[in-house]
Amino acid sequence: MSSTPALYDELCQRLHETAVLGSCSALLSWDEQTGMPAGGSAHRAEQVGLIAGLIHERATHPRIGEILDQLAGAADLGEVESIPFANVRESRRTYDRAKKLPRRLVEELSRTTSLAQQAWIKARRDNDFPGFLPWLEKMIALKREEAEAVGYGDGHPYDALLDEYEPEATAVSIQAVFGALRPRLVDLIARIQNSSTKLSTEIVDRHYPKAAQRVFADAAARSIGFSYDRGRLDESAHPFCSGIGPGDVRLTTRFMDHHFNSAFFGVLHEAGHGIYEQGLPDDQFGLGCGTACSLGIHESQSRLWENFVGRSPAFWNYFYPNAKQAFPSSLKDVPQADFYKAINVVEPSFIRVEADEATYNLHIMLRFELELKLITGELPPRDLHAVWNSTFQRDFALTPPNDAQGCLQDIHWSAGLFGYFPTYALGNIYAGMLFEAAGKDLGDLAPSFSKGEFLPLKNWLGEKIHQHGRRFSAAELMKKATGLELTHEPLMRHLEGKYSALYGL
Amino acid sequence: MSSTPALYDELCQRLHETAVLGSCSALLSWDEQTGMPAGGSAHRAEQVGLIAGLIHERATHPRIGEILDQLAGAADLGEVESIPFANVRESRRTYDRAKKLPRRLVEELSRTTSLAQQAWIKARRDNDFPGFLPWLEKMIALKREEAEAVGYGDGHPYDALLDEYEPEATAVSIQAVFGALRPRLVDLIARIQNSSTKLSTEIVDRHYPKAAQRVFADAAARSIGFSYDRGRLDESAHPFCSGIGPGDVRLTTRFMDHHFNSAFFGVLHEAGHGIYEQGLPDDQFGLGCGTACSLGIHESQSRLWENFVGRSPAFWNYFYPNAKQAFPSSLKDVPQADFYKAINVVEPSFIRVEADEATYNLHIMLRFELELKLITGELPPRDLHAVWNSTFQRDFALTPPNDAQGCLQDIHWSAGLFGYFPTYALGNIYAGMLFEAAGKDLGDLAPSFSKGEFLPLKNWLGEKIHQHGRRFSAAELMKKATGLELTHEPLMRHLEGKYSALYGL
Repeated sequence: MSSTPALYDELCQRLHETAVLGSCSALLSWDEQTGMPAGGSAHRAEQVGLIAGLIHERATHPRIGEILDQLAGAADLGEVESIPFANVRESRRTYDRAKKLPRRLVEELSRTTSLAQQAWIKARRDNDFPGFLPWLEKMIALKREEAEAVGYGDGHPYDALLDEYEPEATAVSIQAVFGALRPRLVDLIARIQNSSTKLSTEIVDRHYPKAAQRVFADAAARSIGFSYDRGRLDESAHPFCSGIGPGDVRLTTRFMDHHFNSAFFGVLHEAGHGIYEQGLPDDQFGLGCGTACSLGIHESQSRLWENFVGRSPAFWNYFYPNAKQAFPSSLKDVPQADFYKAINVVEPSFIRVEADEATYNLHIMLRFELELKLITGELPPRDLHAVWNSTFQRDFALTPPNDAQGCLQDIHWSAGLFGYFPTYALGNIYAGMLFEAAGKDLGDLAPSFSKGEFLPLKNWLGEKIHQHGRRFSAAELMKKATGLELTHEPLMRHLEGKYSALYGL
Repeated sequence: MSSTPALYDELCQRLHETAVLGSCSALLSWDEQTGMPAGGSAHRAEQVGLIAGLIHERATHPRIGEILDQLAGAADLGEVESIPFANVRESRRTYDRAKKLPRRLVEELSRTTSLAQQAWIKARRDNDFPGFLPWLEKMIALKREEAEAVGYGDGHPYDALLDEYEPEATAVSIQAVFGALRPRLVDLIARIQNSSTKLSTEIVDRHYPKAAQRVFADAAARSIGFSYDRGRLDESAHPFCSGIGPGDVRLTTRFMDHHFNSAFFGVLHEAGHGIYEQGLPDDQFGLGCGTACSLGIHESQSRLWENFVGRSPAFWNYFYPNAKQAFPSSLKDVPQADFYKAINVVEPSFIRVEADEATYNLHIMLRFELELKLITGELPPRDLHAVWNSTFQRDFALTPPNDAQGCLQDIHWSAGLFGYFPTYALGNIYAGMLFEAAGKDLGDLAPSFSKGEFLPLKNWLGEKIHQHGRRFSAAELMKKATGLELTHEPLMRHLEGKYSALYGL
């Protein structure tokens, strides 16, 4: 019988090694989306499938179960909120879930994810929903199988999937959160649309050369605290952030010559994720305390930098002179106030990742509504194209002109990420809570933003959120950081204050 | 007792899976040299170390030994030159070698390689030989341990290392080849240096904008048959080609604004390697017949395209008009004949990869001489800087101004590649034999090169070399392709013919 410290060390060693394998897979996936030649896709699927199998084998090794059982009663493991205690608790969670999944399913999900993403890239480019449909059907079948294997008690099969991204959340709890937020948003958007003040995006739709956008976005990401010594920025069809491992965090974006917002706010967004990943403790890599708390918390970091900071007047007090230098042909004669309005136009639109702060959450609610039905089987995948369009018409009074701007716009479903979307709206709610709390702790942030000082906020987030990993649950972490239970009031205060000024509500 | 086909299938399945893991490692290594942020180097070493251990575990699995033993006497495996026969023979070779290496050594070599390469990149940049010395010492100690573990009979410890790159070659056989070639080369170079004709590199040292070089080199690589659907080209400190797996072959180069030859001929060189990798049969991936025959044969492909084709007058009949368009400020008024002379200047110089066709092999002989002594211990690593410089003075009548242009110029020793250099000179010898044989089979190639037709030669090489992998030994393959035993006569005929015309010898 080993001592508690010896057992704990063995557990950490095993988890660390499994995470190193996971980080190989993360690089394979990053490469697949950034630079892999088309001819490599079949082999890449084999690579990620094999690694997924090896990870699963290690993650479900009976020795982990033995160690966890022996540690369960250990009095000398540490207090409830100690790092070892949290690492053991998180290991138990992960192990129990992994044990329920047969290796065959894990490998097939992994291979299918790789191939389906390639199919999605083609289908999106060619507006070819029928070409993607077989992959969507296969992926949904596999995810339903996953939900059944994991189990969901008296709840909804969706809960079993959601749990991987936002522990403790359920379909019912998300429905309650969205149900309360939705009327407030719909009311705000209606008042904006009925306002006699009309704002235009014309300024941000001018010509912004890609190379200059890249330099400008790099500088902004660096200013808010993303380290390029420990990370990089590339281009991909769908922007993402991937923490490969300690000292190596990768962001991607896509540059469009005639749209400023897409790449710039995309980079701030991904840099927010990247700063979180760079702020996790290196020595806890592979353990609960070295892992981001939840996807909702992750998204709070990206949305906070993208919107609460990046779309604020104070941010542009500092950056606008640089912007005019970087893009002289488009911004030379544009007053800062006009630019600020142009980046903050509220307008129902097709693409989620380019949506304004007010309508964004409606995009999420639509996806949540549809994916819930896809998982139960209530919505057959072949009907997705039609139902997406009719639901979009209901919520936005618009019908997508094609599937690339409709149901094929997001990578998530091709990557098997069902249950992922709601965490984006949770992120907005958390971001509102955190930004308000940071302002209370640090004092008015606008004057420091105007001087280009973003590190006080970055460091506050590091102390309150980043350094803890999964030491606490999302709810506990938010309570410690803000003193509040989950509430959308700070988000709505932010949106109503901001848009009342912009639209004279 | 399983049937021969069942045993053979099981063997192939195991080898294939191990190769898939190897291809994950290849991507990790490619990424490390092309884009990995500096902060990721410690974690990358952990990744490649872990994968190396897994590969070693699989490559030495006792079941492979059992299968090979059972197949040893199988009458129904196929004839001596059949694909199954060759795959089993190569598997035996690889298995026997791998079995002799303890896993600890394999993992340590892998980790050290990753870290030593990072150290080399820094040391080369900073001309800091003492900073690299501890890594060199560690690497040599590990390689000596490897040589002892593998064994070398009555031969030289170096043989055990050479065997991995050029099966059947030995220190003694290489000394014989180099001993015969050296006086012929020294004589030719002396006649060139004593010639009253003096050629200048001034034209190729003009300004060649990197972006235009990239476009021009891409087009040339495509013309000679490198497929960008199944490969890509990136930048790295040291150019290389890496076959990640079927459909995914990666080249790198480095662009210098004031030197045309480096990137352009570097790309042709790596594309030659890449075309070989792309020409290996996909369905033999991981098996002997899906693996390049030897590094000497590999190098014959790169040197053939780089020199025999790329530095020929006929090649520039086709490409020179494009070159003038791509680089108008440097080439506008330059006649093709002057450009041709400038890319073919023979002049002792410091950097191997930029050396002309005649002096290149002397660079290799120097490295071979020194690494032989490093492996025996006759040359202590700390003396390398001094001995490199004195040997270089002896062979080239020049002393390197710094170590970046001296003993730190190549990545090989930091990557543990002792025994690798001589295969470069073998490659030149093989290339001479192959180019002459292709000319005999296909007729004079110059007229088709002048029209931009390179595929007949590419297809001839595909048929004679690429498709076979390791089905035959290097000597057998060359005999089948050219009808000759190893001989440097075709290489010397090529060099003497070419430089007699250029220098009026």
